[in-house]
Amino acid sequence: MQVERVSCQWREGYVSVEKMTDCLGDGEGAKTPMELYEELTAQGDQVRALKTAKAEKCLGSQTEIEAAVQLLIKLKVDYKQVAGQDYKAGCPPSENSVAPDNGPAASGGDDEDTVDPWNVSTTNAKGVDYDKLIVRFGSSKIDKELVDRIEKVAGQRPHHFLRRGIFFSHRDMHQVLDAYEKQKSFYLYTGRGPSSESMHVGHLIPFIFTKWLQDVFDIPLVIQLTDDEKYLWKDLTLEDCHHFAVENAKDIIACGFDVNKTFIFSDLDYMGASPEFYRNVVKIQKHVTFNQVKGIFGFTDSDCIGKISFPAIQAAPSFSNSFPQIFGSRKDIQCLIPCAIDQDPYFRMTRDVAPRIGYPKPALLHSTFFPALQGAQTKMSASDANSSIFLTDTPKQIKNKINKHAFSGGKDTVEEHRQDGGNPDVDVSFMYLTFFLEDDEQLEKIRQDYASGALLTGELKKILIETLQPMIAQHQERRKQVTDETVKQFMTPRRLNFHF
Amino acid sequence: MQVERVSCQWREGYVSVEKMTDCLGDGEGAKTPMELYEELTAQGDQVRALKTAKAEKCLGSQTEIEAAVQLLIKLKVDYKQVAGQDYKAGCPPSENSVAPDNGPAASGGDDEDTVDPWNVSTTNAKGVDYDKLIVRFGSSKIDKELVDRIEKVAGQRPHHFLRRGIFFSHRDMHQVLDAYEKQKSFYLYTGRGPSSESMHVGHLIPFIFTKWLQDVFDIPLVIQLTDDEKYLWKDLTLEDCHHFAVENAKDIIACGFDVNKTFIFSDLDYMGASPEFYRNVVKIQKHVTFNQVKGIFGFTDSDCIGKISFPAIQAAPSFSNSFPQIFGSRKDIQCLIPCAIDQDPYFRMTRDVAPRIGYPKPALLHSTFFPALQGAQTKMSASDANSSIFLTDTPKQIKNKINKHAFSGGKDTVEEHRQDGGNPDVDVSFMYLTFFLEDDEQLEKIRQDYASGALLTGELKKILIETLQPMIAQHQERRKQVTDETVKQFMTPRRLNFHF
Repeated sequence: MQVERVSCQWREGYVSVEKMTDCLGDGEGAKTPMELYEELTAQGDQVRALKTAKAEKCLGSQTEIEAAVQLLIKLKVDYKQVAGQDYKAGCPPSENSVAPDNGPAASGGDDEDTVDPWNVSTTNAKGVDYDKLIVRFGSSKIDKELVDRIEKVAGQRPHHFLRRGIFFSHRDMHQVLDAYEKQKSFYLYTGRGPSSESMHVGHLIPFIFTKWLQDVFDIPLVIQLTDDEKYLWKDLTLEDCHHFAVENAKDIIACGFDVNKTFIFSDLDYMGASPEFYRNVVKIQKHVTFNQVKGIFGFTDSDCIGKISFPAIQAAPSFSNSFPQIFGSRKDIQCLIPCAIDQDPYFRMTRDVAPRIGYPKPALLHSTFFPALQGAQTKMSASDANSSIFLTDTPKQIKNKINKHAFSGGKDTVEEHRQDGGNPDVDVSFMYLTFFLEDDEQLEKIRQDYASGALLTGELKKILIETLQPMIAQHQERRKQVTDETVKQFMTPRRLNFHF
Repeated sequence: MQVERVSCQWREGYVSVEKMTDCLGDGEGAKTPMELYEELTAQGDQVRALKTAKAEKCLGSQTEIEAAVQLLIKLKVDYKQVAGQDYKAGCPPSENSVAPDNGPAASGGDDEDTVDPWNVSTTNAKGVDYDKLIVRFGSSKIDKELVDRIEKVAGQRPHHFLRRGIFFSHRDMHQVLDAYEKQKSFYLYTGRGPSSESMHVGHLIPFIFTKWLQDVFDIPLVIQLTDDEKYLWKDLTLEDCHHFAVENAKDIIACGFDVNKTFIFSDLDYMGASPEFYRNVVKIQKHVTFNQVKGIFGFTDSDCIGKISFPAIQAAPSFSNSFPQIFGSRKDIQCLIPCAIDQDPYFRMTRDVAPRIGYPKPALLHSTFFPALQGAQTKMSASDANSSIFLTDTPKQIKNKINKHAFSGGKDTVEEHRQDGGNPDVDVSFMYLTFFLEDDEQLEKIRQDYASGALLTGELKKILIETLQPMIAQHQERRKQVTDETVKQFMTPRRLNFHF
């Protein structure tokens, strides 16, 4: 897995698609996939007829042909948006093809935000438009009703990530809760792509939330470290990637996971230690075509075959019999995956395959992205130390980075700020506090004071610094306690404290 | 691996390619890739110019355009044959692209024989034209000099498979012998795709020869059973494929391999038991693109991602550090692969990747195909019990099959046969004897007598029956001795009786 922000090489393309669609949209109203399909088929016939006429008689009007072709192209763009698939002559849209799990690639949507496992970018200072993303991905919003229900079933106040919409989207969470209420348990699966030794505070979000879920539901957790993926995608050696996996495991363990309930694994190790895991990988690989991964992930013919087949390896932990040491031969234990929404393409694919190989679909809880210090629309890079707060930063580094680099929603002068107030919606320090300041009332007071101008940017930054400094120091203290022996324990395939 | 004959779905295509090429070939002489490339580029420009002219003025001559397009197509076909790659505008042919290891797909050659891991077909009653295949694949002929050298180095009379040209082609065998003479050892790797419980006599050829090599050179042997491949390609369950692997292992062990020198493995088991094997698979997968496997194996966008990445799994055993239990961390032990020539595409790919990941290229010894009873150009199918002699056949079945189904090179009547003689070159009984009758003089006498008419078809068949009946009976006897415990021993990753 990988949660990084890099600008999208495809952006240009989408801008023009967007314009064409806008043009076409004027006065057209919403059409069903079938209506569009029929229109397209008729238009395709007309183009062919015109071309044939021209070729035979060499008399057809060039302008007429061009106009027909233009309309055809516009219809195709529109069809793809509505039907979630390319127009194919002779293949009318099926019910299934507009279903969420067969939806368009994450990056092929109707606005300028780009979200896929390798690219997240937006031009909006507030960050990605998550409501649009829910529509585009076909997932469901985590609404108040669901948060209340989690509170009821878990018997605990919902985590502030839920209360504040940081985990904002889901798939099948109600089904997981229905089953849990009937004493049918589930397990958690999350992961990380170990591309360097150092993790930043944003990388902790899924783990902090996963730990909360594990604590309130008391269920097993598996954590995948995709060192094989990092080797395939980056200019790194296998040894580097595996080393990063072990180092990252220490930071994950430092989040406080219980060794009796948690299995952390490196793909490079576990694939070679579990025939059952490889069997599930092969099963998935048999049921996904290159066409499918091309559509979902944007792979091309120039990509290596390792990348092309990798999605099956991220999918396999969604099925309980990939872990016989934990679940025995049970293949029916439901999996719940808390992850950042950029990972959803992997699990849309997984959910599509699951019923075809006799397994339950994994459920998902999606988080928003953690913004870079420079602002929600900029790139956060592990190679740029100033783009985030790293888990290895000293109190002084934390202070300096926030003071120097954290994008401010404040005004240019104190006078202006006092008079007009700041904008917390684009202020990175305030955004970070929504992630890490647990007290709702205090956070709301900060928001109001900042918006009114009572709180200055320097004061807001100070609150963030004083929140992060002890948090990071405590993390570092806990990480120091994590010995090689502890890591080995977590990473050894073994029975956990559950009976399946 | 898979050595089966099925008629090729692409044959039609090749017939027309062949005709076009013949047409073009008249009076053209051989052109270099660069000459063809330049001609193609110019022709491409002309087509575009004509099309543009036509579109603009609507006056261009349709006949002129069509003729230009026809010539372009012919040039492209010719270019692919000479350069070993598709013509791409802006990409002139490189030195490397005509090298043997980057040669054209096995099935994309200059005649009607089709040879790739899934398809072997020919219209010639004598079978595939192996001399042409050597040229097409860019391998080297096993000539008298090499056979003599093997005799000298091994200190043993060459196996009749070598003396009779059944193993007819090689890659780097001289290099293997050079090193062996300097006390630098090597290891053997061969395999089988377990698509059913039953194996036929043809399946034994690589194993009989590999055993001879192992005996005379005293070296380790690894045997891969590609149960994962069979699952990906056939309508079988994982359990079926693994079961077939274990059953096939029994027949292989019955060939007389030494358990102290031989490791047999199922991919489904070994992948999940050896992180080192998976690491090599991932290394290979990083260095092969979809474009490459498309060119080598003919995969399409509709193929599942398992098929697309599988070639790396057949490649990995070519590198000694895939077997740390045998070779420790040594990655420099040369591998020699005896196999039927249809498997060569896998190892052309492997040899291409090897230097890029720091490993030696595997050497190869290629055998001809074992003909079906119905004739060398027909399909031999594991599902058609009458297409070959199976290792489970009774003496009576052997007799009946040969008498009923073995294609005869004899004449229609005894009188004609006595007068004109039979044709041993297309007679399947005689072909089978070249595989299984060890006495050279006796075989030559049979050939002469059959060609002269002194030996009748029924008499020839009787000799084959009396050769195969005891051979199969002995195999069955040896297979009976192979217990589950013995299979387990062979299939357990362990140190062999060698020190590396």
